[in-house]
Parts: sequence; C-alpha cells; structure tokens
Amino acid sequence: MNNFDFKIPTDIRFGKGKISCLKEELGHFGKRILLVYGGGSIKKNGIYDEVMQQLDGFDVYELSGITPNPKLETVRKGTAICKEQNIDAILAVGGGSTIDASKHIAAGACYAGDPWDLVLDRSKVKEALPIAVVLTICATGSEMNSGAVITNEETCEKLEINTPLLYPKLSICDPTYLYSLPPKQSAAGSVDILSHVMEQYFQPNDEAFITDVLSEGVMKTVVKYGPIVMEDPKNYEARSNLMWASTVGLNHLLTVGKGGAWSVHPIEHVVSGCYDLTHGVGLAILTPVWMEHVLGDGTKSRFARFAREVFGVKVDDDMTAAKEGIKKVREFFLLLGMPSTLSEVGIDDSKFEFMAKEAIRTSGLSTRAYVKLDENDVMEIFKKCL
Amino acid sequence: MNNFDFKIPTDIRFGKGKISCLKEELGHFGKRILLVYGGGSIKKNGIYDEVMQQLDGFDVYELSGITPNPKLETVRKGTAICKEQNIDAILAVGGGSTIDASKHIAAGACYAGDPWDLVLDRSKVKEALPIAVVLTICATGSEMNSGAVITNEETCEKLEINTPLLYPKLSICDPTYLYSLPPKQSAAGSVDILSHVMEQYFQPNDEAFITDVLSEGVMKTVVKYGPIVMEDPKNYEARSNLMWASTVGLNHLLTVGKGGAWSVHPIEHVVSGCYDLTHGVGLAILTPVWMEHVLGDGTKSRFARFAREVFGVKVDDDMTAAKEGIKKVREFFLLLGMPSTLSEVGIDDSKFEFMAKEAIRTSGLSTRAYVKLDENDVMEIFKKCL
Repeated sequence: MNNFDFKIPTDIRFGKGKISCLKEELGHFGKRILLVYGGGSIKKNGIYDEVMQQLDGFDVYELSGITPNPKLETVRKGTAICKEQNIDAILAVGGGSTIDASKHIAAGACYAGDPWDLVLDRSKVKEALPIAVVLTICATGSEMNSGAVITNEETCEKLEINTPLLYPKLSICDPTYLYSLPPKQSAAGSVDILSHVMEQYFQPNDEAFITDVLSEGVMKTVVKYGPIVMEDPKNYEARSNLMWASTVGLNHLLTVGKGGAWSVHPIEHVVSGCYDLTHGVGLAILTPVWMEHVLGDGTKSRFARFAREVFGVKVDDDMTAAKEGIKKVREFFLLLGMPSTLSEVGIDDSKFEFMAKEAIRTSGLSTRAYVKLDENDVMEIFKKCL
Repeated sequence: MNNFDFKIPTDIRFGKGKISCLKEELGHFGKRILLVYGGGSIKKNGIYDEVMQQLDGFDVYELSGITPNPKLETVRKGTAICKEQNIDAILAVGGGSTIDASKHIAAGACYAGDPWDLVLDRSKVKEALPIAVVLTICATGSEMNSGAVITNEETCEKLEINTPLLYPKLSICDPTYLYSLPPKQSAAGSVDILSHVMEQYFQPNDEAFITDVLSEGVMKTVVKYGPIVMEDPKNYEARSNLMWASTVGLNHLLTVGKGGAWSVHPIEHVVSGCYDLTHGVGLAILTPVWMEHVLGDGTKSRFARFAREVFGVKVDDDMTAAKEGIKKVREFFLLLGMPSTLSEVGIDDSKFEFMAKEAIRTSGLSTRAYVKLDENDVMEIFKKCL
C-alpha cells in the first residue's frame, strides 16, 4: 500500500430539502456572490427559484451559459466579473462543467494574469475565492474534490487544474434535483462515475486491498442503479445512491494506497477537447476498446476480478472471465443508450494522429499508466473505435 | 437513503516514515505540548524516541499511564496539567484509549468545571485544544472521528462524548508502528473494527446500498487480514490494510444514509465499564450471541447477505445462510484467539441485572436499535454468554 495523505475539507449536505441551509452557510463567506450556472434548465425545473429564495439579502451577480467542456473564454468572463464587482464567493449551481468553471474562476479572481497561466502552472495558484455548490448533475465528483478540467479552444487543449485551494467549502446534494435530468445526461453521468472508479482500480498496485474492495462497492452501485434511473427518473433510492457514488467515486478515497496515471480519461479529454463531445459519451466509446487493447497475461487476473466482483461473472478461467467482463461493460453502456463508435457521433480519422500525440504529451499514459501506451497504441485504440 | 451531513476535517498522513511531518505540523498549533501515552510500550519499541526527536524545540509535558477503558481520574489529571501549564495542543501517542482520554482532556482544558460534566451534557463543550495523534494501535477509529469513550469508576459508567470539536487535527498512521503489538491487542483490534462496521451495517434502512457495499468491503478486509497479522506481525500489506480499515470503519463514511442506534457496543460498554475487560474481548463474546438473539424472519435476509458477502457463504436459503454466517463470525473470533464466554474472563452473573438495566438506560437499545431490546433481552444475552 503506497503512502498517502488524506484530507477533504468539503462540507457535504446530502438529501432532500438540504437547500434550506444555503442562506446561513453562504453567509459565512460574505454578501457578494457570483452565481454560476449552465444553459438555463435550472429555470425550468424550479431549482433557480429555490436558490434565489435562499439568496435573498445577498448581492448576486450572474454568469450563465456554462457549457459542457467549459471554456477558457467563460472563465475569463467570470474572472472579470469577480474582479470588477469584488465578489466574496462563488455559488455553482450545476454539474461538473459548472463547478469546474467556477473553480477556475475562483482561482483566476485572485490572480493578476490570464487564468490559463494557472492551468499550465498550478504553483501560481496562491489563493482562491470560496466555492459553494448546489449539485444538479451527478457525474464528475467535482463537488468534493480539488480538480477542474478546462478547455482552451484556441489551442484545442483540455487540461486539469488541481490544488487543495479548489475544494468546494460547501456542497448541497439533493437527489430530487436530478429528477428532471435528460436521459442522456443521466446515462453519461453513470458512465463517468464508473469510468472514474475504473481508472483508479486498474493500477499496478495490488496491495491496497481495502481501496479495491471499496471501489468494487461503488462500481456495483453504478451497475445496479444506472439502468434504474433510465426507466424511473424519480426513483429516490437510485438517484441518491448514484449521487453519493459520484462523490465518493472521485473524492480521493478510491485512490489512497494506489496511485499511478489514468488511461482512458486523457485519451477522451483530447477527443472532447477537439470535438466538444459529451465526456461520458467519449468514455463509453473508448473504455471497452482500451480494455481489449491492454488485456494480456499481466492484466488478466485484475480484469477477471473486476468481472466477477462488479458484474457477477462466474467463470473460473481468468482470461475467459476478463473477456466476459469487457462484454458486460459494453452491454452496460448500450443499456444506458450510449453510442459505441466514434462514427456514430460524427468523428472520423482526420485528427487521430494529432489527438494521439496530444494524449501522450498531456498525460502520464506513456510513463505511469496501468499499461503504458505510446502514440501507436492510442492510434490503434482510435481506429478500433471508428 | 436518510439525509446526512458529512465533513471530516482530520488531516491523515498514512504510511511508513510519516512521523517526519510531525515537527512542522505540530508547530502550527503552538509550542507547549501535552504528550499523552499509555503504559510505556512506546519506550520499548522506539516510537517514543522517534516522537521526541520531532518534539525537539517544543515545551513538552507528559501524561503517561493511560489505561484501556480510560478513566475520568486520568482525564482530570490531564486537564489540570493543561490549565497549569498553558498547554497549546495535545499529542496522543497510542490507540483508542489514549486518543479518547486526550480528546476529553482537550475539551476539559477549556472548561471551568469538572470534565465529567461534558460527558453528561455535550452542549457544554464550547471549545477544545487541538489534538494530534500518532497511532500505535488500530481498532477504534478515534484517529479520524469526534467521539471519545470515558469510564467513571465511581459510578461504574462508561459513556461517550462526541462533538465536532474533538476531531483530531492531524493523525499520523504508520503501519510499521503496529509491528510490535502484543497478539492479544492485534486480535482485539480486528474484533473492534469488524464490530464497528457490523453496528453500522445491521440497521433498519436498506436503501443506502452504497454504504452497505462499502461496509462489506471493509469487513472483507478485516476477515482477510486479521488472521494474517496473528501469524506474521510484520506483514506490511496486512497491517496497512487493517490500519486504514480501522479509520474508514468509524469515520462516518459507513453510517451515511443509514443511522439508528448500535446494539452490541452499549451492552459491552457496561460490561467493560464494570469489569475493566478489554473492549474487543467483550465484543467477541457478545456479538455472536446477539446475532443469534435477534435473528428472525425480519432480519434473516440481511444476515444472509452479510454471510454471503463478507464470509463467502454459498447457500440459497436465507435462514440457513444467516446461521452459517453466525458460525463463521464465531470461528473468526476463535481463530484470533478470542475467548467465547464471560466465564473464561472471570465474569459471573452477579451484576447481570444491574448491567442489563444500565445498558438500556444509557443507550438507544430499546428505542432505535436494529432490533429493539429490553432488559430481559439483555439478561438473556448475558446468560447465553456465561
């Protein structure tokens, strides 16, 4: 088990009606609030009104229109508002994209130069505004971690900024806020949660047994409830289990004692950075192909364990069980209505070479991944995804 | 899934050699330190020297001789030192007893009256000195939670004080510090961890699936590694997995979404409060008998799930699987060298009536437990333990 540090300062308020604590808790951070949200669905489903009721008495500035794969341009806008209006705290109402943009804005607001500098060199992040979250999509775990992924459209880069200063101070997670999610977002969220845990689970270190069994528990949760919310969007048990799975899935708990670089996310980030694809969709296409690509004598026992523990595969031979597991992953994504090829989402091979180079350049794929990959490997994976 | 709040401020530094951060981190709290430890085993195994090397430059006051089932008298002594010497922070070097005593001292040091007042009325805890921990026994999870159990010998009461102010600020968990533990303490620790998770797992709420599967993961970890450290005390993989299991087992993660009162601990606390029995030994005697006592049509499916998931029992019929699970628990405790009757540890029936009354009076057994118990139930459990 590798050495690790573990400290998560985020204050989670989980459950129906928890929005009622917002006024008091947000008050601790100040009066001048930047409210950040997406395309306006929160105005249709009533969440905006519930939030505004809590913000009575605050000076509220709004930054709406945060898109999936949030853009540097938006961050620059938010940073400018914070500086001009002397904002005290940021309230993100949304999912991973809104929270990630808010985190980057929170850091950018306290930095004199361009916010992209902070992504390229996180040591430049010296302070950040406090961030509060009202979660409306469960997927990225951003509500209880210190990372944010931002896309720079000028350079076609989708990169992460990550420092303890970016932990949200408060995250309100009400599972009923997920009831009105479009099915595609529910599905992509489940894929993302599963993928996060798989990235942490498929690593060279086998000695962190406890972390592995906890990971298996979270993955079983996604496999159990992911399809239920597709059929029954207002199922509280399913929504609440998935919502907490998204948080626990990427709040550091499932990494401790393990470590190493991720495999599928860095490849997907390049694709969705170039094509503005929904992150979960990209993961659904790439993950089974990556599994097939790296399956071999050195990896088959962990793949077999994954198949048995997460999908209940009952086969003694490791290689057979491993292959059965990959099949189950593919079936699970299909059940959620995910596409399984890049062609289906309108992506051809024209940028494969560039993207393969970028994936290697911007990640630990070739140095610290579960199975080390080079550009040719990534090219092969892309081709198999066509 | 029940609503919950989740915030754990403790900074965990886990792994071999992590003691090296103590000097710097402790320095944030001040210069005047009360060093609290037990019977002196840390002087034989070298941990005391490693700690003192880090404390070079601090003003160190010592309170040694903390016993299992830590006593109010010791807390009073510690509180007096803190007040007389203007102590800035408490450094607990030990296991649950030492940490619990330190927590109570930390609160008592900031309170004008007798520290027992704080146990009887936790609203009187308004502040507490910062607490740092160097963990040398893994069992209670006290290194990352806000509870402390203290015994008042005058009244034969063993009660808990629990408030967020008592979270340790820092806990250093080095699995090699467990290498020299006497086998009996290693065994009792494993029983304690398993019991904590069982208390949280056996609860009426079945909807917190994710919490249940995480609990099963931690229990599997104990069942896998508990016996290994008995055979091979310097097995790093086993020690590190158990050490983190003890922390995760009682840091609130396995309670979220569930709740309800515990069953076996309140009964055991009365026994060890009266007889100064090792807590883990009392739990090992009581747990299987409690399981038999509450097994019935309403509980058999959860008991069967426990048997299948934690002990790998492969039986279709729930009642048969449940009974097989209880047998496995008993075998597991025997494998760790635990006694299985009260007679073996010199306890007869003379205080059964008093203890049964106390167990009911001081707990939620009759009101909020998995299966509600009255005095007669507890009497019956005691008799079956003879």
